[in-house]
Amino acid sequence: MELNDINPNVLNVKPSSMREFDHEISADPQIVKLTLGEPNFDVPAHIKQAAIDAINDNYSHYPYFWGYAELREAAAKYYQEKFGYHYTADQIVVTVGATEAVADAVATLFQPGDAVILPSPAYPLYDASIAMHGLKQVRIDTSKTDYILTPEAVQQAIDDNPGLNIRGLIITDPNNPTGVAYTEEQLKALVPVLKENRIWVISDEIYGELTYGQKHYTLSTWLPDQTVIVNGLSKSHAMTGWRLGYVFGPKGFIDEIAKVHQFTVTTPTSTVQYAAIEAMKHGQNDAEVMRKQYEKRRDFVVKNMREAGFDVVHPGGAFYVYAKIPASLHMDSWTCARTLAKDYHIGLFPGASFGDDASIRISYAASDEALKAAMTAIKKLVADKSVVGDK
Amino acid sequence: MELNDINPNVLNVKPSSMREFDHEISADPQIVKLTLGEPNFDVPAHIKQAAIDAINDNYSHYPYFWGYAELREAAAKYYQEKFGYHYTADQIVVTVGATEAVADAVATLFQPGDAVILPSPAYPLYDASIAMHGLKQVRIDTSKTDYILTPEAVQQAIDDNPGLNIRGLIITDPNNPTGVAYTEEQLKALVPVLKENRIWVISDEIYGELTYGQKHYTLSTWLPDQTVIVNGLSKSHAMTGWRLGYVFGPKGFIDEIAKVHQFTVTTPTSTVQYAAIEAMKHGQNDAEVMRKQYEKRRDFVVKNMREAGFDVVHPGGAFYVYAKIPASLHMDSWTCARTLAKDYHIGLFPGASFGDDASIRISYAASDEALKAAMTAIKKLVADKSVVGDK
Repeated sequence: MELNDINPNVLNVKPSSMREFDHEISADPQIVKLTLGEPNFDVPAHIKQAAIDAINDNYSHYPYFWGYAELREAAAKYYQEKFGYHYTADQIVVTVGATEAVADAVATLFQPGDAVILPSPAYPLYDASIAMHGLKQVRIDTSKTDYILTPEAVQQAIDDNPGLNIRGLIITDPNNPTGVAYTEEQLKALVPVLKENRIWVISDEIYGELTYGQKHYTLSTWLPDQTVIVNGLSKSHAMTGWRLGYVFGPKGFIDEIAKVHQFTVTTPTSTVQYAAIEAMKHGQNDAEVMRKQYEKRRDFVVKNMREAGFDVVHPGGAFYVYAKIPASLHMDSWTCARTLAKDYHIGLFPGASFGDDASIRISYAASDEALKAAMTAIKKLVADKSVVGDK
Repeated sequence: MELNDINPNVLNVKPSSMREFDHEISADPQIVKLTLGEPNFDVPAHIKQAAIDAINDNYSHYPYFWGYAELREAAAKYYQEKFGYHYTADQIVVTVGATEAVADAVATLFQPGDAVILPSPAYPLYDASIAMHGLKQVRIDTSKTDYILTPEAVQQAIDDNPGLNIRGLIITDPNNPTGVAYTEEQLKALVPVLKENRIWVISDEIYGELTYGQKHYTLSTWLPDQTVIVNGLSKSHAMTGWRLGYVFGPKGFIDEIAKVHQFTVTTPTSTVQYAAIEAMKHGQNDAEVMRKQYEKRRDFVVKNMREAGFDVVHPGGAFYVYAKIPASLHMDSWTCARTLAKDYHIGLFPGASFGDDASIRISYAASDEALKAAMTAIKKLVADKSVVGDK
């Protein structure tokens, strides 16, 4: 096979180092994995039952491609009550997880040559989606502002790139990989520069229900005509493998993305949509049990990582701790992750996967035992490998 | 919202007239629908049970993005035995139905400006996928050759379009909408012109198990390095709404499409993949019950349509009868479909949806009662509306 037959934009997409690394280390029977962003909880029983009922009732036919009307109506209400979203059922398309929502939004909004801002570190899906569609990316390093994107940094990126047609921004709040969650003020501050430059925002709010001691806000409140929200049930209802997401946006945009969606997947699985109706109507509190557990684990991990000598910016949401590797280790992020996997049987992701080689990401969507083992191993790594004073 | 913010390739995609028309006529409580290509059978019980078991066993986590290894291995074996496919598990990616397989294949193989041949009439998904990716299409009218694409017609299309970079062909066999199924000779005849011009074939074989009195062949047998096969369980196992498809191809291509797939949907639903493992391992004969029923219905519809004065080319597969509207009706395909829906409460699709205004498509994946009612209504339409002698 000749690779010059392949679309060069696709050749340019790097395979996901995260999934490959996770797959690779899974071969170690002793490995304790804090890699993927996967709840270690089961799908709530009432939602499982709804899916089983839909199977038994033979709801196996094509749903209307936007998603069942009942589901979109229930989702409109659910997210209005949760976060103040202001969308009606005809401003929602049901997608195959948040991934399809992001991919479709990028395909609908931008055309080859357009540039999109990515606050860095960033979840690698965005990077790939940008490359696949022949777009350019403008990375903004957020490490100096506690991983929060500031309006000054957006303006600077625009000023620094006069030759680029910057038309978009992808923001993740609460954030993956850093765990930071934006305050109302931090989001509102971004609105003027985005309005003035007519920059569309793809706002990935998949971790919206997982905040700790602070509320989740959405840019769409102040920027409704330029915001596309991505959300779904993967994290709030521990339904990662079931693949159920949503895209919310202005009506004119939604009519267009619905076509992209239809001609990309037709629709998500019918029985999963019935399960999602149950989640939207009766699963308003499902996340709370998990959220409380995650909060305890977060506190445990943050405390231990700081004790081990890693710098950690306060993670107000999601289920990640993003920790700066101590200088005394003299390790870049791949060396640190590979050493931990090989010599200590602990799997976590290098910051390099997110565009930042100075840190590692720990997913605390894992059991208490796994987290304890990981903290012990990381402290041992620091004790074993630190070289103090030569740098 | 300003539509000039939207990717012009997306604006150029026409909404699916089929789904919209189907949605529209569904408002009529009396309507008898022979529109969508949807088995009126239920998912086989053993497959439903496998999905229920997977739900109860909490298989709700991310599958490896290529699809479970066990599923790809089982699929390799299943299709090898069924149709002589020659693919190993690492040449298969599991997709969200055949739709995602087609969309990903188009995205992986072609780049904006490339041209793709579409034998016409054609399933509208292809048309949309081509437009969405900024490709050009070359339609070849197959109505003069009993809806079979010939090598002469391919050569003619190449000669007629010296300015186009023709890099692909999308073929559907057995065909939607015409129901024709290619013989071994008809497929083999296409190989030299495709090889010589290095034209990649996306071979949509989703109806492969539904042939009547003839065997299903695959172009990949003779053109392995330039063929991408699309298949899945929607038709063979009546799993349309469950969304489970496959793409098969040369290893180098599959490695690239796997990235597109991952960054478009991550993976299809985990529990559906477990159901598919059951279908691949123990559902080899599931299609046969349906196939026998479809064959009877096909014979019934073909006979009645011919009696009503419609020309029908022998449909050797799928579950469609494609019938040329009698001249005496003086109706284009939309007029015919709309009149039948409005005045006779029979829903079927106009040929115009497939790029041919002279015919209508009847899906006989419907109950015997529905088919009887439709045949009676169509004969009544001809009796009521024929104007003989003035043309």
